[in-house]
Amino acid sequence: MLESRKIAHLINSIGGFKSVSLIGTKSHSRNTNVSIFSSVFHIGANPALIDVIFRPSPPQRDTLSNILESGFYTLNHINESIYKKAHQTSARYDAAVSEFDAVSLTPEFKNGFQAPFVQESLIQMRIELKEKIDISINNTTMIIGEIVQIYIPEDCVSPDGFVDLEKANTITCSGLDSYHKTIQLARLSYAKPDKEITSLL
Amino acid sequence: MLESRKIAHLINSIGGFKSVSLIGTKSHSRNTNVSIFSSVFHIGANPALIDVIFRPSPPQRDTLSNILESGFYTLNHINESIYKKAHQTSARYDAAVSEFDAVSLTPEFKNGFQAPFVQESLIQMRIELKEKIDISINNTTMIIGEIVQIYIPEDCVSPDGFVDLEKANTITCSGLDSYHKTIQLARLSYAKPDKEITSLL
Repeated sequence: MLESRKIAHLINSIGGFKSVSLIGTKSHSRNTNVSIFSSVFHIGANPALIDVIFRPSPPQRDTLSNILESGFYTLNHINESIYKKAHQTSARYDAAVSEFDAVSLTPEFKNGFQAPFVQESLIQMRIELKEKIDISINNTTMIIGEIVQIYIPEDCVSPDGFVDLEKANTITCSGLDSYHKTIQLARLSYAKPDKEITSLL
Repeated sequence: MLESRKIAHLINSIGGFKSVSLIGTKSHSRNTNVSIFSSVFHIGANPALIDVIFRPSPPQRDTLSNILESGFYTLNHINESIYKKAHQTSARYDAAVSEFDAVSLTPEFKNGFQAPFVQESLIQMRIELKEKIDISINNTTMIIGEIVQIYIPEDCVSPDGFVDLEKANTITCSGLDSYHKTIQLARLSYAKPDKEITSLL
């Protein structure tokens, strides 16, 4: 194995578990695109903002150019039944090929939104592009988007707003190719000095 | 419950599972600080870069000012035996209080590095500040750092460089207060068009 590939595996996994989701987009020429990303991060709740880091190389290029062209994209959680199809979207398909067809995922258009959702995802989000920040130090691009609509099964949301990702079968990933389901240890009470934390529920 | 708190829970958890780790720092006046962060993200393997998003408010303020003052910090994985102590570091202690003492975690100084590691962590990283980017849209600060040294048990690294986080007991989190251990589903082969993916061992 090439040393650079080994370093890529090491550094991609050393940071810990990551969220992993499918981003759905549509180009001006109406091609749909769906691609797996483990570089989607929550950056603030009010406004509800997420960022995505894009590497300079394909196949992420199609997703990035579609987002910049259209201003819209969808974020779709990956569950245990679709993670292999989701992983397959990372193959370098031609721009004219829709990964939806290539990996047999179902594009879903709803409420007049331009970008396709992934019908097999239980948790889907409609995102609007807000800002593009170039990170010159390693030639990556950060795209900040606002979550404008959330589709989620009602029984996956707790009374306090917490989303039960396990009930939605959402999985996590590590490194470039490892997928994991989870077992909740606890939810812990809000921490205050001189007060012992307790498990909620 | 206040509506804003409910939105905070919802938006903090809707993005999926997150890495969660402890950042260790030291101030000019030699106070040590350790604080839990679920906003640490991998942004590139070569150079090995991670970023951390800081909110404008305390208690994250001490960590941020120590990083900007000293240029150095440590990143320490959280395992099942210390996650409650790790959560407790999020309480708003005075700047003069070391969270190491307050929550009974052990600061570890080694190889002449200025910032303290968390001795109880099986995976530790030495980080050097590289760049500060202000994200004006929601008044947060992104700190980009380079991983300059990694401490990890040898048996947690696969021959291809992949880090077996489960062997290191590293956990993941969701939302503001939920902690989870993981069960690996599979590692999948590198995806190529017209080639079926297979499970790696």
